[in-house]
Amino acid sequence: MKMKAPNRSISALCVFCEAPLSDSALQLLEQGIASHELVFPRPAAGAVPARTEPDPALRTADVAFGQPDIVSVLQSEKLRWVQLTSAGYTRYDTADFRSWAKARGVIVTNSSSVYAEACAEHVFAFMLAQARLLPQGLGVRCESGSSDWTELREGSVLLQGRSAVILGFGAIATRLLQLLSPFEMKVIAMRRKPRGDEKVAVVTPNNLRDALVAADHVINILPDNAESVGFISAERLGWMKPGAVFYNIGRGTTVDQQALAEFLHSGHLRAAWLDVTDPEPLPDDHPLGKTPNCHITPHTAGGHQNESATLVRHFLENFRRFLADMPLRDRIM
Amino acid sequence: MKMKAPNRSISALCVFCEAPLSDSALQLLEQGIASHELVFPRPAAGAVPARTEPDPALRTADVAFGQPDIVSVLQSEKLRWVQLTSAGYTRYDTADFRSWAKARGVIVTNSSSVYAEACAEHVFAFMLAQARLLPQGLGVRCESGSSDWTELREGSVLLQGRSAVILGFGAIATRLLQLLSPFEMKVIAMRRKPRGDEKVAVVTPNNLRDALVAADHVINILPDNAESVGFISAERLGWMKPGAVFYNIGRGTTVDQQALAEFLHSGHLRAAWLDVTDPEPLPDDHPLGKTPNCHITPHTAGGHQNESATLVRHFLENFRRFLADMPLRDRIM
Repeated sequence: MKMKAPNRSISALCVFCEAPLSDSALQLLEQGIASHELVFPRPAAGAVPARTEPDPALRTADVAFGQPDIVSVLQSEKLRWVQLTSAGYTRYDTADFRSWAKARGVIVTNSSSVYAEACAEHVFAFMLAQARLLPQGLGVRCESGSSDWTELREGSVLLQGRSAVILGFGAIATRLLQLLSPFEMKVIAMRRKPRGDEKVAVVTPNNLRDALVAADHVINILPDNAESVGFISAERLGWMKPGAVFYNIGRGTTVDQQALAEFLHSGHLRAAWLDVTDPEPLPDDHPLGKTPNCHITPHTAGGHQNESATLVRHFLENFRRFLADMPLRDRIM
Repeated sequence: MKMKAPNRSISALCVFCEAPLSDSALQLLEQGIASHELVFPRPAAGAVPARTEPDPALRTADVAFGQPDIVSVLQSEKLRWVQLTSAGYTRYDTADFRSWAKARGVIVTNSSSVYAEACAEHVFAFMLAQARLLPQGLGVRCESGSSDWTELREGSVLLQGRSAVILGFGAIATRLLQLLSPFEMKVIAMRRKPRGDEKVAVVTPNNLRDALVAADHVINILPDNAESVGFISAERLGWMKPGAVFYNIGRGTTVDQQALAEFLHSGHLRAAWLDVTDPEPLPDDHPLGKTPNCHITPHTAGGHQNESATLVRHFLENFRRFLADMPLRDRIM
């Protein structure tokens, strides 16, 4: 007869934290876990350039929060749950890590919902800045009726009623669809395995072409993994509608950047707005850096003033759920 | 016994057009008015710097579309309807013009709904560009973890959940409220004469202070008129919350620009985003031009690629209504 799992809240848990939190966020974490124990990396994270042996603090932790060292995680004895403070998890997405987590029944969650709002607002800011030609308009002082002025006004467009393709369907795409809803756009999302709950027209990578051909805006939110590397290839760029705008807040590795620069130079693409590149930042002589219709922010899409506190609140919500044996949010393994 | 008004479509009307339309928009107009007569300024608009005598083409027109010369309008004999191609109508908003229109039963409409979508999207682009620090982020190339990067990420904010005051409640504010709805913001609109149909909390200028004190975003859409000149005074700027952002897509004359520059320099206001100034453009040595947290576009908020055609479609819709004795859209007198 299977016994009921003991109530996790009875005994104090050991929570290992390796995350660059603000003082106030750390205080929030300490208060939030109450009587449970909080431990930190030994030696302190950042004190050594690379860890050469497993972190003793992780060995006896029940929970890890942050960006814990993988070797230490794999050698931990008691871990039951790891919550990453990032949305991306390429580093942890290995066969070794997955099989370790599966074999030991370790839950792995990330913080994608913490970044979803900021990322969705960031790419939305890109779309509107492009539509209203903000980089050009903010850089010129001209009179009504002048040729600069006429060019700006006639070059400005509306988002309303235009078409868009969103590549990658997760928390960010879901939020972006909500933000776009008043604009009555024709949106199609690409998802590798459609689930039927997307509330938007969905295509798979195999039937993406027709969607790309018709889209005024192509929004890339693909994460970095084996299937996505180089996904935005010269061929797929070539399918895009002349005058389309390409946005990337996923990962730089998903794009053939040399081809992108060529499609921007030729004018086939009207503009690109990238929050991610490969590498970051781009080297001085990279062609995308010298392309006037390529606008780059330095991987700041997920950032916001209360990021650190929001990460902690998201962890504490999951901690509460973990103690109560409830399903955790943002579970990835 | 009152006789039924004759059906206006029975006899051909004379439509006077003084608007800088694209060739395709002009074609659309010609097709749209079908069997009615289309006439143009004599001599052609722009051929003389200022008209010295009334335009003979206007004298016998039934309808005027565009920006007709006021003196000619006031001396016209048959005009029954004037549709302006602008949203602003300061030039026509005189006691003489109003009493002429009233005495002769002339309907005056403007094109505010043509510009509402573009203006709402433009100020929304300002709000998101500020929230995501696009001017700063696009101008820097930095590594994750560097001080520039941390400053950008921590300085970025979300629109979600913030508070806003909209000054001036018309077609633009109505559309802006729709665009903002997914952001769950606390919005208050100021309207001189609330009508109760605003679908948002409304204050009058007399009880604006409490709203301004609490607002993260202050959006000015006030037109230029006797009540609005200098409305954004040093006193009202002083009421604004430290760190608030001020936006102006109304008219430059509504702002004490010297005071605004001071509030921006002191850091009391986080930033200003202006599509309108007084004059336009600002002179070389104007303090607002040298204020780094003041972002100015050259009165392009209302512009968009199909502006000319949209103006004509809006006129044709009203022309159809005029012929059918239906109420016209965007009626201002």
